[in-house]
Amino acid sequence: MSTNGSTMPSPQVLYNLENPVFCCYLFWATVLVVKMLLMSLLTALQRFRYKIFPNEEDLFFKNTEVQFNDPHVERVRRAHRNDMENILPYFIMSLIYISTNPDATVACNLFRVASLARIAHTLVYAVYPVPQPSRIIAFGSMLLITFYMAAVVALRTLSFI
Amino acid sequence: MSTNGSTMPSPQVLYNLENPVFCCYLFWATVLVVKMLLMSLLTALQRFRYKIFPNEEDLFFKNTEVQFNDPHVERVRRAHRNDMENILPYFIMSLIYISTNPDATVACNLFRVASLARIAHTLVYAVYPVPQPSRIIAFGSMLLITFYMAAVVALRTLSFI
Amino acid sequence: MSTNGSTMPSPQVLYNLENPVFCCYLFWATVLVVKMLLMSLLTALQRFRYKIFPNEEDLFFKNTEVQFNDPHVERVRRAHRNDMENILPYFIMSLIYISTNPDATVACNLFRVASLARIAHTLVYAVYPVPQPSRIIAFGSMLLITFYMAAVVALRTLSFI
Repeated sequence: MSTNGSTMPSPQVLYNLENPVFCCYLFWATVLVVKMLLMSLLTALQRFRYKIFPNEEDLFFKNTEVQFNDPHVERVRRAHRNDMENILPYFIMSLIYISTNPDATVACNLFRVASLARIAHTLVYAVYPVPQPSRIIAFGSMLLITFYMAAVVALRTLSFI
Repeated sequence: MSTNGSTMPSPQVLYNLENPVFCCYLFWATVLVVKMLLMSLLTALQRFRYKIFPNEEDLFFKNTEVQFNDPHVERVRRAHRNDMENILPYFIMSLIYISTNPDATVACNLFRVASLARIAHTLVYAVYPVPQPSRIIAFGSMLLITFYMAAVVALRTLSFI
Repeated sequence: MSTNGSTMPSPQVLYNLENPVFCCYLFWATVLVVKMLLMSLLTALQRFRYKIFPNEEDLFFKNTEVQFNDPHVERVRRAHRNDMENILPYFIMSLIYISTNPDATVACNLFRVASLARIAHTLVYAVYPVPQPSRIIAFGSMLLITFYMAAVVALRTLSFI
């Protein structure tokens, strides 16, 4: 890890396409953004398939009324909420983790594992439900990776408490 | 687009007030942050207007009980949740899109359209409900812009998969 | 505040461990990320304690059925949702506020107060409910700080509207 503590060099620029760790973050963060937005479309798909709409102005079919609590729609919504609870804090945590100039191999593999784990989480939760502990493992993978990054960043910046 | 591939220049710094694309991002991201936070206050306003409170400790009026599922409050909450589902991933996606050094005119106009579309979304969903497809158009505008940015970033960083 | 308007210096790099404001952001953003992720675990704890599970595949105990609307679980989920509504926009707002090169004392203290206020919010909402206005004060502290940062950023970038 370069410390860059000498007197007059220009400061390190890590948020830059010349930094392979940042490029790897860009790719996998993009994958997760797209995955999250597809959850909205999956919810819409379930709403149209089962004709479950929560607003008066959405009643595209005759003889339907506003409805809530359909299990097919709610399952996708729970998966989507879980994404927001976990992936959105991960976006910030992994972005600021890059500022500690981590080892490229470690950082890139953390990004890959965390992202693939959340794709698996969506598949086993919202697309095709399978028995536990598949979902717990997928959920726990990103959680532990985020905690690891948090530990690295907190230890480096502890004197700024 | 500058590639900056020569040997010794200092690396490009794009996350900086000297970059007009970043400044435009700053302005419109700020507008969207404020808009999102106002949703909390709009929910609170509806709760006081209709005296619908979800917690025992919030019962500011005599003879009220905790209540859920009031349609006026729930409509604002659905709009707010939709904001979180779409604007928060957009914040990250558009922030990292800046790292690809996009054309300033294209990038700034994408920020403007996406932000104005979400303001329109709030108006037609939570403030004064109007018939579809107004909300679908407002929703789809930011969605498509986010997908476009995702495509740009993913293609630039595909080798870091 | 340095304006850096002269002809040939390398541009300011503020997103860097050499900037104490950014370091302070890193520390307190990390604290808030960890706090948010612990909400997931607190929800899981409540689910196991009261045996309230929302999915068929989560029924780890015999003779239980999927259940919703348990008040102990829902209170934690409301607190968690409130975190997402407020802390996630704050992450972006405070991150981009750093780009305006604010006074270090002001910025660092804003980060500290906002973060401690949200920890207090969780304690008085989800862990041990206490009477109002404790939760309103904790909620309002981060809200006002985010609005202040929004005002600073919007005024600096108003010409890029």
